[in-house]
Amino acid sequence: MRVRIPKRTLAEAIGILERIIPNRSSNPVITQLFLQGHSSGLTLRGTNGEVDLELTVTAETEGADAFLVPAHLFGQIVRGLPGELVELSADNQELEVESGSFRTRLATATPEGYPELTFDAPMEARLAAPELARALAHVRYAASTEEYRAIFRGVQLEFHPGALRAVASDGFRLARYDLATRTEFVKKLVVPARSADEIIRVLKDTEGEVAVGVTEGKLVLASEAFRMSVALMEGEFPDYERVIPQQFVGEAVLSAEALRESIKRVKVLADKNNHRIDLFFQGDALEVVAEGDYGRGSERLSVQREGEPQLVLAYNAEYLGDALSPVEGQVRIRLSGPTSPTVIEAVEDPGYLAVVVPLRV
Amino acid sequence: MRVRIPKRTLAEAIGILERIIPNRSSNPVITQLFLQGHSSGLTLRGTNGEVDLELTVTAETEGADAFLVPAHLFGQIVRGLPGELVELSADNQELEVESGSFRTRLATATPEGYPELTFDAPMEARLAAPELARALAHVRYAASTEEYRAIFRGVQLEFHPGALRAVASDGFRLARYDLATRTEFVKKLVVPARSADEIIRVLKDTEGEVAVGVTEGKLVLASEAFRMSVALMEGEFPDYERVIPQQFVGEAVLSAEALRESIKRVKVLADKNNHRIDLFFQGDALEVVAEGDYGRGSERLSVQREGEPQLVLAYNAEYLGDALSPVEGQVRIRLSGPTSPTVIEAVEDPGYLAVVVPLRV
Repeated sequence: MRVRIPKRTLAEAIGILERIIPNRSSNPVITQLFLQGHSSGLTLRGTNGEVDLELTVTAETEGADAFLVPAHLFGQIVRGLPGELVELSADNQELEVESGSFRTRLATATPEGYPELTFDAPMEARLAAPELARALAHVRYAASTEEYRAIFRGVQLEFHPGALRAVASDGFRLARYDLATRTEFVKKLVVPARSADEIIRVLKDTEGEVAVGVTEGKLVLASEAFRMSVALMEGEFPDYERVIPQQFVGEAVLSAEALRESIKRVKVLADKNNHRIDLFFQGDALEVVAEGDYGRGSERLSVQREGEPQLVLAYNAEYLGDALSPVEGQVRIRLSGPTSPTVIEAVEDPGYLAVVVPLRV
Repeated sequence: MRVRIPKRTLAEAIGILERIIPNRSSNPVITQLFLQGHSSGLTLRGTNGEVDLELTVTAETEGADAFLVPAHLFGQIVRGLPGELVELSADNQELEVESGSFRTRLATATPEGYPELTFDAPMEARLAAPELARALAHVRYAASTEEYRAIFRGVQLEFHPGALRAVASDGFRLARYDLATRTEFVKKLVVPARSADEIIRVLKDTEGEVAVGVTEGKLVLASEAFRMSVALMEGEFPDYERVIPQQFVGEAVLSAEALRESIKRVKVLADKNNHRIDLFFQGDALEVVAEGDYGRGSERLSVQREGEPQLVLAYNAEYLGDALSPVEGQVRIRLSGPTSPTVIEAVEDPGYLAVVVPLRV
């Protein structure tokens, strides 16, 4: 097999796969990169056992051999190549990499022992790739990292006719993102949060649509440039709708960025155990306050307010900051009282909603 | 005490001190930043027990109180401040920090328990700060990290009439930098390599001259903006001159950058145990080759050559790369044979000389 390919194209593809392919594994074959020539380019595959990914790049190719090379070593070599063009030539045992005045011969392995990656699934829906990435990226932070209630270590995707909802929660907070779609597919499935990160990374660089299918405990995503298969978690989320309050005693609207920055500054002084930060709402002012072993920090912000003239709430500063993190422009904070959940909304993006439970003080 | 100071000025000073002040210590008082007002500004001090540093910044100041604040916490607060100007006001127990709409009160401690940092020494020499930084930065990589022969964990500074020499070695390689000076001071002293890093960082941002003095096992450096005191190591380097070969069988001149990049690419394939890389000199060509468990990498470079028509040498790629690292422009590689030391010189900077011992193959 002989391939001529721009260094940049090859390096980018390997870079995406290297994030998935482990450096070490009890099953060493999955530390390898699978390479195969085809009529109009090169196919690259990698897996971590949970996420399988195949990328197809355009290249001048002769021959259709398949073989394995150590993924991270190959990535390191390709990134360092001196020329703009790379020539690969593979025989049964070696891959020769040439670029500029640099030449390398790498031992290859036959693909026999490589796990079979299947991307076959009946495709049920087509979604705009950046929108699916956006839905996952808005909620992913709220997933749990605890062993307890393992289902919360995932992001739930709910396909409804005309809509896709992404939800994540750790039992103390919740993030939800609703996306309008043109699909009739109905299904709830839970993607491990780490795999959701990989989906986000791959989709972010994808233009156009991605086809979505489900088969044998796997979510399959496919576009012209890639195919991806993600092992799903078993089960589904307990009813989370009931934790979202419907009645509010007040609300405040302000710049999400200003509040995020203020929380970041003030939380430096917070108690390191509970990260407590207090929000004092009074008239058109919001005072953000934290107090801990080293002293007290406060900052006053202007807000647009409705509802009760005065309200004091305490939050875990990390949780509140996370809930604000995906919000661009103005944020609407809807308060249902100092001991019941607070709803965070993005004024300019009705798809996003987050719930944060105040600290009991 | 009241101080008005640009946030940037204060943040930069704290940033320099934070690199020295430990985050944790069995002696908690040294995790504190010492602050004192004076007629035209603010004095800030920090120490890690080995390096003492005092910075003086210009500020509008009333009062000359001295107090301590937790250094890294204060640094975090100052960097995050929303305004361009910071107002500090300290009473006996608290420091208030105000900037924009943000306000913080930090508990302070009295400076009683703080170690006395002395920067008093008879000043023996004056050097251009960037040149002293350059001398240290050129040799520092060659210092040892082993417990064995502890003196090699330092950088030796040799003051001769009209010259300063900096030397570092780990017994397998050596780096030397000679600087012309206008001083008559004569002294050899050894600075711990880590402290040399701190000197380099502080001097890099210093314009003009720095005064140098030695007292009670300490090197003292002083300029208008800072005073620094560094604990010296006891002893002096064994005679290193004899390892520098005086006779050569050949030499090669080429771009240091091209050789560094080539070594970086090729060494990816090198044996992970000895990092062996081979240099084949033949005619006007240099072939850089490495071979290990995964394959073989090679690159051909053009060189200007003198001496024996053909030479093959093996090196530890890391050591050879390090020796080239400070060289800008062309490098001269002077070979005394495959089993005796190689000399690396910077064609455009006669101050620099490095010695690397080839691997026995």
